[in-house]
Amino acid sequence: MSGDRTRDEAEAWWSTAIIAMRPGEIRLRGHDVRDLIGNVDLVSMIWLMTRGSLPRPEEARLLEAALVAGVDHGPQAPSIAIARMAITCGVGINGAMASAVNTLGDVHGGAGEQALGLYERIIAVSDALDGDVEAAAQAVIAEEKAAGRHYMPGFGHRFHPLDPRAPRLLSLVDRAVAEGVVAGRHAQAGRAVEAVLARGREKPVPMNIDGITAIVYGELGFPGPLARGLFILSRSIGILSHAYEQSLEGARNKGPLPRAMTWRYTGENGFDEGGSGGAGGEA
Amino acid sequence: MSGDRTRDEAEAWWSTAIIAMRPGEIRLRGHDVRDLIGNVDLVSMIWLMTRGSLPRPEEARLLEAALVAGVDHGPQAPSIAIARMAITCGVGINGAMASAVNTLGDVHGGAGEQALGLYERIIAVSDALDGDVEAAAQAVIAEEKAAGRHYMPGFGHRFHPLDPRAPRLLSLVDRAVAEGVVAGRHAQAGRAVEAVLARGREKPVPMNIDGITAIVYGELGFPGPLARGLFILSRSIGILSHAYEQSLEGARNKGPLPRAMTWRYTGENGFDEGGSGGAGGEA
Amino acid sequence: MSGDRTRDEAEAWWSTAIIAMRPGEIRLRGHDVRDLIGNVDLVSMIWLMTRGSLPRPEEARLLEAALVAGVDHGPQAPSIAIARMAITCGVGINGAMASAVNTLGDVHGGAGEQALGLYERIIAVSDALDGDVEAAAQAVIAEEKAAGRHYMPGFGHRFHPLDPRAPRLLSLVDRAVAEGVVAGRHAQAGRAVEAVLARGREKPVPMNIDGITAIVYGELGFPGPLARGLFILSRSIGILSHAYEQSLEGARNKGPLPRAMTWRYTGENGFDEGGSGGAGGEA
Amino acid sequence: MSGDRTRDEAEAWWSTAIIAMRPGEIRLRGHDVRDLIGNVDLVSMIWLMTRGSLPRPEEARLLEAALVAGVDHGPQAPSIAIARMAITCGVGINGAMASAVNTLGDVHGGAGEQALGLYERIIAVSDALDGDVEAAAQAVIAEEKAAGRHYMPGFGHRFHPLDPRAPRLLSLVDRAVAEGVVAGRHAQAGRAVEAVLARGREKPVPMNIDGITAIVYGELGFPGPLARGLFILSRSIGILSHAYEQSLEGARNKGPLPRAMTWRYTGENGFDEGGSGGAGGEA
Repeated sequence: MSGDRTRDEAEAWWSTAIIAMRPGEIRLRGHDVRDLIGNVDLVSMIWLMTRGSLPRPEEARLLEAALVAGVDHGPQAPSIAIARMAITCGVGINGAMASAVNTLGDVHGGAGEQALGLYERIIAVSDALDGDVEAAAQAVIAEEKAAGRHYMPGFGHRFHPLDPRAPRLLSLVDRAVAEGVVAGRHAQAGRAVEAVLARGREKPVPMNIDGITAIVYGELGFPGPLARGLFILSRSIGILSHAYEQSLEGARNKGPLPRAMTWRYTGENGFDEGGSGGAGGEA
Repeated sequence: MSGDRTRDEAEAWWSTAIIAMRPGEIRLRGHDVRDLIGNVDLVSMIWLMTRGSLPRPEEARLLEAALVAGVDHGPQAPSIAIARMAITCGVGINGAMASAVNTLGDVHGGAGEQALGLYERIIAVSDALDGDVEAAAQAVIAEEKAAGRHYMPGFGHRFHPLDPRAPRLLSLVDRAVAEGVVAGRHAQAGRAVEAVLARGREKPVPMNIDGITAIVYGELGFPGPLARGLFILSRSIGILSHAYEQSLEGARNKGPLPRAMTWRYTGENGFDEGGSGGAGGEA
Repeated sequence: MSGDRTRDEAEAWWSTAIIAMRPGEIRLRGHDVRDLIGNVDLVSMIWLMTRGSLPRPEEARLLEAALVAGVDHGPQAPSIAIARMAITCGVGINGAMASAVNTLGDVHGGAGEQALGLYERIIAVSDALDGDVEAAAQAVIAEEKAAGRHYMPGFGHRFHPLDPRAPRLLSLVDRAVAEGVVAGRHAQAGRAVEAVLARGREKPVPMNIDGITAIVYGELGFPGPLARGLFILSRSIGILSHAYEQSLEGARNKGPLPRAMTWRYTGENGFDEGGSGGAGGEA
Repeated sequence: MSGDRTRDEAEAWWSTAIIAMRPGEIRLRGHDVRDLIGNVDLVSMIWLMTRGSLPRPEEARLLEAALVAGVDHGPQAPSIAIARMAITCGVGINGAMASAVNTLGDVHGGAGEQALGLYERIIAVSDALDGDVEAAAQAVIAEEKAAGRHYMPGFGHRFHPLDPRAPRLLSLVDRAVAEGVVAGRHAQAGRAVEAVLARGREKPVPMNIDGITAIVYGELGFPGPLARGLFILSRSIGILSHAYEQSLEGARNKGPLPRAMTWRYTGENGFDEGGSGGAGGEA
């Protein structure tokens, strides 16, 4: 408190429990920054900053595996394509990353958050069903379908019959459960969803990267919005890598298709032939 | 069609009814761009591009009044403050505008879209009530309050007891109704909300800029998402103006408070005195 | 002034000459907002907000023609493609517009600003050469080429042998010069660049949209950064239109190529066959 | 290659050496993603993705220390303030992070990249001066000052007389030099700058976070644009933490100053008294 009421009000407007500072000193979540540098790993730092306390090493390692798994899925993902296009438009790497990160919205970046919500509901319902997780999953999925939502977030993949990241991460969760690091309830819920979705189908609808990372984040106690945030931190690594790689090629105004290609005009009063498309990011 | 199936598929992926092009020619919504330049005003162009056909001049003028009304509400609005801060960070004016426009989300830029939805519901209910708009407004507002939503989007203002833009724009809507330009049903709905909200209160909750522009957009037939889009076009003018004005001052890393001020630390293990804040946008 | 020095300092930190407000009243550049609504057209409003005073109607009409000309150049332009991709990722229309506007950087949105700089230098040099604009253009272009810059901003087009927007807008500038609305020096400079670039070439390098709009903005007295800003306002209309059109299609996670296509892997240790690509915006 | 030339061209348009995929398999920089998950730490993953090969553990630990050091500098930094304001506007956490990351431009996020450039020049000059690094630093700084650049990027701090992160990180660099992990030339260059800047001054201009992280990135072989990118990854952690903390408070349309405060109007035709400011993020 400064004793100047107006100043106190202005400073209170920007209150935070994350960082304290005075000339020559910085404390992050109450830790002197000098003690953190060189002593705390980056994943534990993510945990400390978002949640307020440091994780146990085994918790950090499980989180780390999930963060490593999500870094990239290639340039057909809109965020990666956007990063590559943006960097050819004459913006800094911060700008290219921002345009890309911005698109990790409900559809592109939100499935993990939604899957986590699904698991939390299944866990709550199973408590009311004496712990019958599969019955709970069945009930919650039925509810979802009744509401018109036929795809469960975190399950199924357009490209991979089996998302290779899911079983690998799930095996790490299982090990963490065996070692008492996490309780395993989200993993149970996730497996129950998979089992219910497989019933009566020839081709199963297996867990994908969003479904498994939601298990990891949930087991470790992260709330939904942070699940999305963690995915953004992870995918930012791929976004940076692609933006930088693209910058080395020297292209200018890269469009989505090679320049010789155009687009289909579907409106009225177009050109009779030979037209209806065009190249160039030129204004 | 090129005869090359792969190419046709790629071009179809980017189909649009907005623009057709061939070398030396551009058609926007079927109009040769040379016929538009110098002949069509900017507001009619907005209408043509978003909706596919040109408006009548009287329609364009009513839309124009709404677009003029929303350009700016000063640097205490987050979007304007963000534009001013961003431009001091070494990004182009496109970057400053993007960071600002991005924040015109559900809360900052969405009230008009939500008010339009409210009016559409009231109009639909009033049809079922033999045209009793006030009864319809009462029913819809009761429904909203029952769902825990106590503030009606487009009504009330923290700063202005009466938002000066609302009555001015409403008088233009009334004139347009009198002249047969628009039907007046959204205006009726808006007034009905105002009347219902005023009942039993000493201080009314008058229509604000979002409430009145939603009337204009609704009367002119714009759907909800475009209502938000039109507001963004309008506010972009203020955003550009503030970003440019700020750029002339030459500040670097402008923070929200003057540099001598800091912030209040609300966490544990802070400094006993003299600390807990700090200046500088320096990294 | 409030009499509270801390408050005065905080309020001074956010000083602006653009907008004044008190409860129930808003003044934009000193004009009561009620006088502007319904009386001032949108283009004059853009001028007023960015420059501080209202234009003459003939000035506003010339500016309007340039703003109309730049609204769209189709989905092969990165900004438009990005807007369309972003809206399928589950962000609001503000988010899609922001990711797109953000990419109007030095390469994609800056050619007009750069062309304006080129003209200003030619005008200054021609003053030193007794008004010989073509000699001035030759000198400045030679200087550019000596510095390794072989493409003059605002001239030449990858797709259009002759950009149809340029001669149409130039004829409007000529008319404005004839009517005494503008001085015509930027038009002279632009034509001189075109003439110098055509020398000794079979195929000329004609003025494009950036070259002609830079003439318009320069003739009307806009500084370079505002030239970029005006283009952003103009292109935002196309960006909004494409984002909205795309939203109606209901696609999710639209990538740059149809889903069946993948990408070429150019690194080491790829798949021997049948691989190296992939679909899906899924994480 | 698909044998379909059009398809091959489209896929080549999106070439990358970062990721290869086929159904059920993902390789990142040639490594099967299943081998990376659980075996490679996050910092090594950042290195692998951006540079193409895995670092030695000692290299990864030095990089990690720099990434930990830069996560946050509090809400007076524009990026952090913007993240907090944006999240109150009704956008997702991806949107808030994007608006913030976007502002890590040349001024706010570029000092590290610039300091790295300064060091590289000093190293090159010192090679020509038989390794006299201080003479080289003196020459380069003189050149900078002659060009009107009086502040060396990476040195001096408005708030901290001595940035506590710098000596801590520098001691880790020194240890890495002693252990043969890095060569130490950037550290020499940085210390030389500090020494030259201190000459004839009572108060030194010590290295700040940008100056020291540039040493780390340079010693580890990262090029300039990646130096900026690494800082963005690091600061994204703070940005996420602040956006999330702010979201828990439930504020709407948070402006830069408390609501009772306004701004100073500096233009003509303002209000005589009691006005010229205003609150509210309402549109």
